[in-house]
Amino acid sequence: MSAAIDKYNRRVDRVNSLVCVGLDSAIDRLPASDDGDPQFVFNRWIIEQTHPYVSAYKPNLAFYEARGEAGWQALARTMAYLREHHPDILTIADAKRGDIGSTSQAYAAALFDELGFDAVTLNPYLGREALQPFLDRADKGCIILCRTSNPGAGEFQDIEQDGKPLWQIVAEHVQAEWNTAGNCMLVVGATYPGELRQVRALAGDMPLLVPGVGAQGGDVEQAVRAGVDSQGRGLIINSSRGILFSDNPAGAARLLRDTINLNR
Amino acid sequence: MSAAIDKYNRRVDRVNSLVCVGLDSAIDRLPASDDGDPQFVFNRWIIEQTHPYVSAYKPNLAFYEARGEAGWQALARTMAYLREHHPDILTIADAKRGDIGSTSQAYAAALFDELGFDAVTLNPYLGREALQPFLDRADKGCIILCRTSNPGAGEFQDIEQDGKPLWQIVAEHVQAEWNTAGNCMLVVGATYPGELRQVRALAGDMPLLVPGVGAQGGDVEQAVRAGVDSQGRGLIINSSRGILFSDNPAGAARLLRDTINLNR
Repeated sequence: MSAAIDKYNRRVDRVNSLVCVGLDSAIDRLPASDDGDPQFVFNRWIIEQTHPYVSAYKPNLAFYEARGEAGWQALARTMAYLREHHPDILTIADAKRGDIGSTSQAYAAALFDELGFDAVTLNPYLGREALQPFLDRADKGCIILCRTSNPGAGEFQDIEQDGKPLWQIVAEHVQAEWNTAGNCMLVVGATYPGELRQVRALAGDMPLLVPGVGAQGGDVEQAVRAGVDSQGRGLIINSSRGILFSDNPAGAARLLRDTINLNR
Repeated sequence: MSAAIDKYNRRVDRVNSLVCVGLDSAIDRLPASDDGDPQFVFNRWIIEQTHPYVSAYKPNLAFYEARGEAGWQALARTMAYLREHHPDILTIADAKRGDIGSTSQAYAAALFDELGFDAVTLNPYLGREALQPFLDRADKGCIILCRTSNPGAGEFQDIEQDGKPLWQIVAEHVQAEWNTAGNCMLVVGATYPGELRQVRALAGDMPLLVPGVGAQGGDVEQAVRAGVDSQGRGLIINSSRGILFSDNPAGAARLLRDTINLNR
């Protein structure tokens, strides 16, 4: 098992939480900051509010890239802050990258080495061969999109070969062929509990990243019941806007943790 | 037709070239620079060497992200330089982005507004609904991955529903449903000339971005014959390493232009 997955499991056991907070800190929703770096200041505040209830943080890179160099600086400061103050919490770069091999090598360097993330989300469209530079990083986590949480996810993910949909073929390939280093995980949206149950059935105890609760409308109880592994964990349940922009982020994270724990 | 596609076609007619140079300026292959910004200095030199023979430049974002803030600064300087000195050459962000709608909005802001690109490459796995914030930008170009150039492209792109492979289903959806603003294009690798011919047959005169010549081994003549549209253009033929790291980038770009023109 990869160091990243082991890190997550230890944290889960220590704080009894499967909660991931998505640090999707859209600049136009943040308060101004005297520090001149409102995204970092906001992230630090969110982390300090929520960390007792959290096992992973997941910034989506889009919200930082939208600000150019200033955004990259905010993201790098956020990562440095997490490494210093909360080194036992898993960090996931929600980047959904997927490119040819020589380019994947550069992305792996950017996300794992330059920014220091423990894990990254990846798009399977180009196939395993293209993603090999990520998969070769046995210490890190590779979280492959399987069934995404958006309403239109089925346009291509539901096309069927011999009665089997693409999202299921992806899950089977990752489980049977891609996971030689024990560092693979899958993304399955909480908005599709039926698919989540099927992925769990075929993926053993592979951890599943589950976005889509909160603002996107996924039901937490259904998702947890459908997705827990044989040990009652194996889920990384993400909420972004539902925690970041709540009146009480600490309370929202604690409530999510407790709702999950009542159902696993 | 979108302003981006119109810009490309005007440039093609003006310099009689379908060549795109991929500015994949991997830092470990560049000479040192007194300026302190070796990626920008190298890009400026490549642009000055090659622009008479070129209708598009396409930086792959991975090679800039790998350097963090310094890389974003180099990319922003490269874009500013192109806007100032070569405003009639198409700029493509090779980003292969694909995320849920609220996140796609942030990526569109990053690439089109913050960095000022004319067009972007997009991954179709999440479906049209997720990419709508890009597709809504009628002035810009949306270049959707169809058949990628890498050797393992077929792992999922070849799965078949009713005898029709996924890459073909993607091409049909983009052609028939996604292209309401006339701003869509498709990526088809030069390494798959058979697929390129089939995509051309079903996509009308939609421009196709064709990577994979040069270092990746795709045959230029085959690709051009398979891919030109009814007016003998409609192709954006990209070479990255084969031009950047040639002993004579100007000569390599001119030779590619001439090889293409002999076959269209």
